Amino acid sequence: MEGSQSVIQAMDILKTMIFLLVGGLTALWATWKLRIPDIAIYLILGIVLGPSVLGLFSVHPDSTMNQFLLIFGAATLLFEGGMSIQIGVLKRVIVSVINLATLGVIVTAAITAVATHFLLGLDWIYALLLAAVIASTDPATLVPVFRQVPIRDHVQQTVVTESAFNDATGAILTFSVLGIVMGSSAFSWGTALGGLLWQAFGGALIGTALAYAAAFGVSRFVWMKGVEPVLLPILIAGSYLAATDGVVALGAAAGLHVEAASGFMAVFCCGLVFGNGDALGCHVPEGDLDEMHSFLAHAALMLRMFIFLLLGSQVDFAVLGKYWLPALGVVAVFMLIARPATVVASCLPDRRAGWAKEDLLFMFWTRETGVIPAALAGFLSAALTARGKELAASADALQQTTGQALLQLGPMISSVTFMAILLTILVQATTTRWLAGKLGLLKEKQA
Amino acid sequence: MEGSQSVIQAMDILKTMIFLLVGGLTALWATWKLRIPDIAIYLILGIVLGPSVLGLFSVHPDSTMNQFLLIFGAATLLFEGGMSIQIGVLKRVIVSVINLATLGVIVTAAITAVATHFLLGLDWIYALLLAAVIASTDPATLVPVFRQVPIRDHVQQTVVTESAFNDATGAILTFSVLGIVMGSSAFSWGTALGGLLWQAFGGALIGTALAYAAAFGVSRFVWMKGVEPVLLPILIAGSYLAATDGVVALGAAAGLHVEAASGFMAVFCCGLVFGNGDALGCHVPEGDLDEMHSFLAHAALMLRMFIFLLLGSQVDFAVLGKYWLPALGVVAVFMLIARPATVVASCLPDRRAGWAKEDLLFMFWTRETGVIPAALAGFLSAALTARGKELAASADALQQTTGQALLQLGPMISSVTFMAILLTILVQATTTRWLAGKLGLLKEKQA
Repeated sequence: MEGSQSVIQAMDILKTMIFLLVGGLTALWATWKLRIPDIAIYLILGIVLGPSVLGLFSVHPDSTMNQFLLIFGAATLLFEGGMSIQIGVLKRVIVSVINLATLGVIVTAAITAVATHFLLGLDWIYALLLAAVIASTDPATLVPVFRQVPIRDHVQQTVVTESAFNDATGAILTFSVLGIVMGSSAFSWGTALGGLLWQAFGGALIGTALAYAAAFGVSRFVWMKGVEPVLLPILIAGSYLAATDGVVALGAAAGLHVEAASGFMAVFCCGLVFGNGDALGCHVPEGDLDEMHSFLAHAALMLRMFIFLLLGSQVDFAVLGKYWLPALGVVAVFMLIARPATVVASCLPDRRAGWAKEDLLFMFWTRETGVIPAALAGFLSAALTARGKELAASADALQQTTGQALLQLGPMISSVTFMAILLTILVQATTTRWLAGKLGLLKEKQA
Repeated sequence: MEGSQSVIQAMDILKTMIFLLVGGLTALWATWKLRIPDIAIYLILGIVLGPSVLGLFSVHPDSTMNQFLLIFGAATLLFEGGMSIQIGVLKRVIVSVINLATLGVIVTAAITAVATHFLLGLDWIYALLLAAVIASTDPATLVPVFRQVPIRDHVQQTVVTESAFNDATGAILTFSVLGIVMGSSAFSWGTALGGLLWQAFGGALIGTALAYAAAFGVSRFVWMKGVEPVLLPILIAGSYLAATDGVVALGAAAGLHVEAASGFMAVFCCGLVFGNGDALGCHVPEGDLDEMHSFLAHAALMLRMFIFLLLGSQVDFAVLGKYWLPALGVVAVFMLIARPATVVASCLPDRRAGWAKEDLLFMFWTRETGVIPAALAGFLSAALTARGKELAASADALQQTTGQALLQLGPMISSVTFMAILLTILVQATTTRWLAGKLGLLKEKQA
């Protein structure tokens, strides 16, 4: 195959793909051996196979391939998270879940930001950006954990649903703060809240509309029989794009300035509505759903491998080594103070759910951090580095200082995110069975 | 999402992906309505949605995305073709199939090259390159055709198996001739034959070895349960890369100059062995195979959409308009003279198969051209254009002339390939039922 540069680049992508998939397969073996959630092992293996150690593959954070995998990968995992939620169970604990996914994210981010400000010495807005990135919990980690350690429905479904909902909130909060950091929007509480609401509801509306359209197609059109999985990437990429670039372009075509809504919220709601057809008057035949679930599960597994192996491979040990002590302090506050405060503030007001002390104690220790923070950290690294270079090259001294700060901030966020993911998963997920046993929440007796 | 160029490019890929998938879905509806093989409709829709007409999407032939989809897509379709073949049926008609897939490809290419030389006025070696590109028949088209029109096993399996085998031969022939055209190898019959044999057997060996390794893993390792589909992209990309860049790199590491083997042959044999585990002493549990078949079928469908929509969108109407009459002549010779000659030369010597006159007549009219020629034409366009530009910019007058010829050749090959694909599929696939009925080969009476 002589010839063009593009062929060589295509072959390089194929090579990276194989390293990632073989690495992922090895990690699955280790997962089975060690009984640790798979993403912890992808992360560790990503470090080992990546440029820091063996150098078997290298994908630059600011490359098209990396960005594509992060956007499409995170969107796919969110869609899958939405599809796997059962609206019926959701109804019973809805107040607690909504509190956890809105107020809770803000409480976690605020407390973590305070720790970040004092321990890492970051300006408040940068501290808040870092805290927002790691504020959400991870369905991709929690679902497999509870498959191994089944506990009482009440608690399990709350934590899982929280993790699916707060991904979108965390992403919205992060991008709102990022807008301020990048200097594209001046801060005002009114604008921020309005933006947040538009992002959340605009995104939800677009995702829901697409889900209804797809469900209508699947339930009506005979010719779609057997080819339903083609709909999945359309819904995933489509709802993300429609909510972001789509509404902006539509607004511009109508002569209006419209802000992008939340692509993540759109994808999540699209999955939620599409997967809960019957409960929401949007019927997708059971057999078709099964076929799509199966295809989606395998595709999501591969994307999870890609994202976490890449994240591991992109950790900057120079930065991690420099900041490891304060970063450890931030993550300790995040796990031991912010989480309990979040659970108490979100669940205690919900009388109807009737939480027992054991339930709350268990939730204190369950805030696995995962895919979305990883994806957000990846986005941010790229965006902050680009903007930082721009400002650092400016003639203005103040802009130069800001540019330098942004250039430092990207790797710092990646490193703290990495530490939060690794610690929460390695420490919490591996002790879930023990804790649930102590608190009498294990389901095994009934089974 | 402010920020980097890579994010914008990633979003552009997502956009193109959606246009291709929505276009593909529309084509599936038309397929169901019109009962024409889907790839014909992708082609037509690719023209309509692409830059020639509506301009909804545009992917340059010599872009990384296009090359990646062509390599990985064609490899996936070949792997699927291999997996779907039943070794048991293969045994009965093996001599005819081997003849069709080796001698037959050469007969077709030779006769078509003569027509090309005289009708399009191309030099012999260029004429042979063009003929080699379209010499193979297409499993991705034939399998769905026979699902709608079931005919006698004997004939059906021969044509389907031929189509799977001759893809690799056609690709090998094409790349051998391309090597000469690009000036990287001087022509000698000995070297050419030796190269062909190494490419075929080296590729087959590598694909087979990988298939055994994977089958061993699936049948032995408990931890692989439920995650087998991860193996598919590893086998597809892995066997292709191992046979091409892999052996070259391995040779270089040992201080030897080793030519690349055929990646397509490797992928096809990998699928064949992996899918026929029991018959070849390489056991893959039935349930695991089913799960992989289902995942692969959906992924292959999407890749088929991508490849054919892109091919349609990349047809150059200026060139097609300029050469349509001689191109039509070439395709007429190709369908009406080369194919019957190929069938007679390959099948008549095989006494054991006991071919009836009706069987042969049916095969005369069954040479649907499809995915691999499309992929080869795409490769070639890029490679010839790159090399042509290089030579055209040279100071040497002879090299300039060669460069000009190569620059013309790429689009010419794409256009004749397009005409061959469209004509064989639109004319032959739509009349298969009628012809099989006339010849008394339809299976419906027994069913």
